[in-house]
Amino acid sequence: MNRSQLFEQIKKKKSYLCVGLDTDLEKIPKHLLKADDPIFEFNKQIIDATKEFCVAYKPNTAFYEAIGAKGWESLKKTLEYIPKDCFTIADAKRGDIGNTSSLYARAFFKQMNFDAITVAPYMGEDSVKPFLEFKDKWVILLVHTSNKGAEDFQLLETRDGKFLFEEVIYASQLWAGPDQMMYVVGATKADKMEEIRRLAPDHFFLVPGIGAQGGDLEAVSRAGMNEQCGLLVNSSRAIIYASTDTDFAGVAHTEAKKIQQEMNLLLDKYAKL
Amino acid sequence: MNRSQLFEQIKKKKSYLCVGLDTDLEKIPKHLLKADDPIFEFNKQIIDATKEFCVAYKPNTAFYEAIGAKGWESLKKTLEYIPKDCFTIADAKRGDIGNTSSLYARAFFKQMNFDAITVAPYMGEDSVKPFLEFKDKWVILLVHTSNKGAEDFQLLETRDGKFLFEEVIYASQLWAGPDQMMYVVGATKADKMEEIRRLAPDHFFLVPGIGAQGGDLEAVSRAGMNEQCGLLVNSSRAIIYASTDTDFAGVAHTEAKKIQQEMNLLLDKYAKL
Repeated sequence: MNRSQLFEQIKKKKSYLCVGLDTDLEKIPKHLLKADDPIFEFNKQIIDATKEFCVAYKPNTAFYEAIGAKGWESLKKTLEYIPKDCFTIADAKRGDIGNTSSLYARAFFKQMNFDAITVAPYMGEDSVKPFLEFKDKWVILLVHTSNKGAEDFQLLETRDGKFLFEEVIYASQLWAGPDQMMYVVGATKADKMEEIRRLAPDHFFLVPGIGAQGGDLEAVSRAGMNEQCGLLVNSSRAIIYASTDTDFAGVAHTEAKKIQQEMNLLLDKYAKL
Repeated sequence: MNRSQLFEQIKKKKSYLCVGLDTDLEKIPKHLLKADDPIFEFNKQIIDATKEFCVAYKPNTAFYEAIGAKGWESLKKTLEYIPKDCFTIADAKRGDIGNTSSLYARAFFKQMNFDAITVAPYMGEDSVKPFLEFKDKWVILLVHTSNKGAEDFQLLETRDGKFLFEEVIYASQLWAGPDQMMYVVGATKADKMEEIRRLAPDHFFLVPGIGAQGGDLEAVSRAGMNEQCGLLVNSSRAIIYASTDTDFAGVAHTEAKKIQQEMNLLLDKYAKL
């Protein structure tokens, strides 16, 4: 899915919600454990319940790898089940030397057909470039993450007086433009988001950290939105585990709808679509 | 496997060779493609041919993920086939927010039973710590990698006049000692290796980049060895694809033996075991 198609979906659904499919066998409702593939069964019902309110889905690969080859099958089936008008993100945080990153690109863009993959920047340009060789596929580069450890290195100041995360933005803009690259900017860093928006006015930001991690949707939207919205705000636990009983899909529907309604207002207020 | 057990193996085999199992369906000998599980069949023969000369095996997960769930099965079977006296490294370069890194730890230390996993430092302490909760399991943290892109961020200078990769060493030494943490230091950076050895005198370094990437074993050993050897030097393509014909295992045997013989001399020269 390319940038203008994504923007169309945002306008149509009046939403920039991404639902995080962080599906954990230890957390899903007990009655699903009888299913052939409980992970897929859970995802299927969550997708059915939320698809009218979100524009993207983001399975985090850790949750699938934790159960081995079977998890990998569940991930593939989940991806195939996601409606084609939704943007799909493999939250994999990969990155390796060139010939190895090519293999990861093959895994997530060909073996599976994700629109985007999250990539860690530490190994630099040649670890990122192989992902950019696929047309209409996206790299979502870690810039300023939502966790406490983000302070350890991302906020180190360089001799030029820039934070490391700013150096990542400057460098990566030479590798790809806003049609192929997005940035991960944690919702818990709304104070930094304005500044990041100045550095990258046209890029989409993938924003984790709303809900369980404490980020604030209004603050994030005020600081980060541009004229094409420019945000995909992720919520995982607050939607998919809003209930862990047999009513989980209905409650997920309600929670996703609540967020979409708030987003509708925020789009009017800040993006002026 | 703990540190003293690893050191015992190094003394016994007079080797600090790690064989990289970067097994690619497009590169293995054609006659193996008829096997039920060509990836596993190739690895099995490579392991049989090299196990007397190496102390560790390092499959890079990208090569297995590139073929989906089936690759994940091949990886698991490979790990189970590796002799128990060999150290096993999942070259996965993972790292995510705490609750997600816990899942990756579950994937590689419980679902599979690797001794160690490579981890990317960009997300900081809480992205690394969950891997350290497993006894006798190891984090191998990316410090200074072997690729060209290593220069993009790892060699940025901070306001304190340190390179980013040095900051990673300083910070991470507060998270774990040399019994649970190793560092990735590319063989192509022998000039930096002496300095890294000064900063981390007791840690093991995992050293990729010998062979296809151009690193020099003598230079690396001179710069990086300590009294317990302190190095695991990886070779992948130069061993496993030394021949891509039906004689591949025999040729891999010869190549691994050649490296082990060189290592035997270098251990005498620099480690004085």
